[in-house]
Amino acid sequence: MTKIFDPAPTKTRLDLNANILKAEYAIRGPLLDKVQAYEDHLREKPGSLPFDHVVNALIGNPQLLDQKPLTFTRQVLSIVQNPTILQHRDILIAKKIYNRDVIKRAELLISQVGKSMGTYTLTKGILGIRNDIANFITQRDGETCDPDDLYLTDGATMAIMQLFSLFAKDSKTGVLLPIPQYPLYTALLTMYNLELLPYYLNEEDGWSTDTVEIENVIKSSISNGTTPQAIVIINPGNPTGAILSLETLADILTIAAKYGIIVIADEVYQQNIFKKEIEFHSMKKVLRHLQKSHPQGEYNNVQLVSLHSASKGTSGECGQRGAFMEVVGFNDEVKEEILRLFSISLCAGTAGQVLVDLMVKTPQPGDESYELDQKERHLINNNMKERAVLLYDIFNNLEGFECQEPQGGMYLFPKLTLPQRAIEESRRVGYEPDEYYCHKLLDATGICVVPGTGFRQRPGTYHIRTTFLPPGTEWITRWKDYHLHFLEEYSN
Amino acid sequence: MTKIFDPAPTKTRLDLNANILKAEYAIRGPLLDKVQAYEDHLREKPGSLPFDHVVNALIGNPQLLDQKPLTFTRQVLSIVQNPTILQHRDILIAKKIYNRDVIKRAELLISQVGKSMGTYTLTKGILGIRNDIANFITQRDGETCDPDDLYLTDGATMAIMQLFSLFAKDSKTGVLLPIPQYPLYTALLTMYNLELLPYYLNEEDGWSTDTVEIENVIKSSISNGTTPQAIVIINPGNPTGAILSLETLADILTIAAKYGIIVIADEVYQQNIFKKEIEFHSMKKVLRHLQKSHPQGEYNNVQLVSLHSASKGTSGECGQRGAFMEVVGFNDEVKEEILRLFSISLCAGTAGQVLVDLMVKTPQPGDESYELDQKERHLINNNMKERAVLLYDIFNNLEGFECQEPQGGMYLFPKLTLPQRAIEESRRVGYEPDEYYCHKLLDATGICVVPGTGFRQRPGTYHIRTTFLPPGTEWITRWKDYHLHFLEEYSN
Repeated sequence: MTKIFDPAPTKTRLDLNANILKAEYAIRGPLLDKVQAYEDHLREKPGSLPFDHVVNALIGNPQLLDQKPLTFTRQVLSIVQNPTILQHRDILIAKKIYNRDVIKRAELLISQVGKSMGTYTLTKGILGIRNDIANFITQRDGETCDPDDLYLTDGATMAIMQLFSLFAKDSKTGVLLPIPQYPLYTALLTMYNLELLPYYLNEEDGWSTDTVEIENVIKSSISNGTTPQAIVIINPGNPTGAILSLETLADILTIAAKYGIIVIADEVYQQNIFKKEIEFHSMKKVLRHLQKSHPQGEYNNVQLVSLHSASKGTSGECGQRGAFMEVVGFNDEVKEEILRLFSISLCAGTAGQVLVDLMVKTPQPGDESYELDQKERHLINNNMKERAVLLYDIFNNLEGFECQEPQGGMYLFPKLTLPQRAIEESRRVGYEPDEYYCHKLLDATGICVVPGTGFRQRPGTYHIRTTFLPPGTEWITRWKDYHLHFLEEYSN
Repeated sequence: MTKIFDPAPTKTRLDLNANILKAEYAIRGPLLDKVQAYEDHLREKPGSLPFDHVVNALIGNPQLLDQKPLTFTRQVLSIVQNPTILQHRDILIAKKIYNRDVIKRAELLISQVGKSMGTYTLTKGILGIRNDIANFITQRDGETCDPDDLYLTDGATMAIMQLFSLFAKDSKTGVLLPIPQYPLYTALLTMYNLELLPYYLNEEDGWSTDTVEIENVIKSSISNGTTPQAIVIINPGNPTGAILSLETLADILTIAAKYGIIVIADEVYQQNIFKKEIEFHSMKKVLRHLQKSHPQGEYNNVQLVSLHSASKGTSGECGQRGAFMEVVGFNDEVKEEILRLFSISLCAGTAGQVLVDLMVKTPQPGDESYELDQKERHLINNNMKERAVLLYDIFNNLEGFECQEPQGGMYLFPKLTLPQRAIEESRRVGYEPDEYYCHKLLDATGICVVPGTGFRQRPGTYHIRTTFLPPGTEWITRWKDYHLHFLEEYSN
């Protein structure tokens, strides 16, 4: 039988957007695929691998490990999703299924949500929730926040994707990124054909930010015909955990003011601080201080987007995709374009919006749920701090590892000094040396971490990023053992 | 006092991505802003406007009006968000707070979700939920669905945005869209600098799809040097509500096979069918039939993405952002690129994922919750059908209105014949005639609908899109009265 017609061939990579093909995102890639394959393998054939479980230290996904969701948060959310349960209010209280303050907060949220969790909300998000966020920010900073400057978004990722697409005027538009950085940023620059203007963090000084370098990068890009459009500041840092000082923040804003550069302050780890002596200062607070202390108006044109999320902190609700951004300093026509763009995707998911509300407004002393809530938060924070410190100590006593002291965030980013033969072998098989190390570590121990290559680093240096979320210390001991074995294997 | 430095000016529209500036999305724009302004106004000064409430017939947002969420759905979701409530299982059952089948389903979902609703899921979404979707599709079509072909997404909107960005190879890449269409599509073509290749739906034939025209559009674009990359089919249609016949679907697939064009089947209204004589057929089912009946392989290269959502149907959970896409026929390297792109935004929100599961797998005969669930669904469907029919009758008896019979969806899209003086006046004030009509209608009655201009239409014709969701008939009577007044006002 002959064909009725000749079918055209299927599309190939050549038929797709070349910029997207070039974009790389190291957190979900070959290593994570291997993790999933090994997990399946262990499930089907226990004992068939040199380890009996995988340790996922790849991504900041706290509740995947042993962090529990906060009780008050989930109890309130569950009522908000099913308001008809309140017809049983008396039993719920009498049988201690819910505390009274849980019910009260749920009722407040239900009225803030309005008709139903199932309705599209305003583009910027539920107004009552934005009011609560504004209160949180005002209290945090001692500086007023206007709820109209706030947008609730499906995770900080979505906010950043939309903003970058809007700011991507043309291929001579540049964005300053810290090196190392969270690879979403480099992926987006590639996708939107923006020019990467890297500013290197100072590893030997605890990954501090060098604002002299930032200004040099800007001047240099301008003289090359590039418009530096925006600068990303990750504070606390990812992967570094470094917290920026007041002085550094002020210097960044001065540069932004002089050169007219949009500041994007990724502050999603602001509630993961574990060095008590170091305080987190929001970029917004410092901006307001500078504006007040400079009545001539030098800082009045600074444009700032600040991001926070319910994915990290003590909430750890990554999978629920709840975040917000505060947008200040833009002129009216640009604010309108931001709103128009975000309106095309209608609104952020309501569950995420509610979780943001529960993150910014928590049980207070005297509330029934306060004691348990505090206990849970202390446990989470103490666990994280203990593990960070432990891992840091072990790394710094391990040959070939050098680690900066953790200040915040969820990760450590130690530098690896690898034997020359390992470096040669990795290149021979087509990997970066730190990628190679990560694959070998995973294959031998089931421990998965991310190579520094994915985050970018000074050429000739190698790092790995690990979360310190996995429970216990047994995995760290196994890593240490494997590392010493690795050094031995590749030494001359 | 002199300034320490001269601040740079703020960014203007000229500093932004020009393609995004050009994109238009009629559903959230000046009319919706006016709706919000009027609502605020009525709240602050009751009686100050010619109407006492706003009727939002602008957007398919069922639970904003009087559609309730499904009881079983929200009860299960609420437990899944707060699994610790199950320690009170006995009381929950004894006091009839939850039926046993609600608890059983929640327990199943909790195990499918895995560790916690707060964890990032696999990029494609929770596997157990994808298995349930695959069963749903297999049963719906009588054709197997592979869960590996499924992606859970934050609403169909997000899926479409990502796909279009990936398929946007260059400015000579085109996408066929039905005219009229849901304005997300035209907005994205503008944003991604894709060429619009319109194919006009046949209004006089119930907004049917003319596949001869589709092929002509393709041939014409190819001879103009454009590559037609994809074709969007909205079935049931938005704004038209038209349901495509088996024959039309098969013809579309034949064209796709001949020319190698990706088919994007937006089927989010597949559970809003109210003309019993007309059956919805999924594009996937028809493709599989054609593949089986053509063993020579003419249809084996067809690439198809099918979209469905928990926003519409009887769920109506728009605000929760739960949807899925089924991706078949692509070669491995393109499938890999789709996965890589979606992995950058990590995963869809877990609440939305759970709601999709509850949409595709519902209480069955014999289950405790079955009776109530059926009752609720019938009520929703009957209400929608009654209002659709009522509105259709009224429109067709109204001078200057001409309406195609509704088959599915949530909207009517009647054609307006406007008096010449109204057309002239509208142009004088800088509006399209149907935009002008919508503003006048809103100002006089508080009823808000969307001008056909936003959806595109044959030049020289004017339409409006209205949902038939608002309860009661009083608003329709007021519309009719205003319309007759409008005709009188603008006649000679």
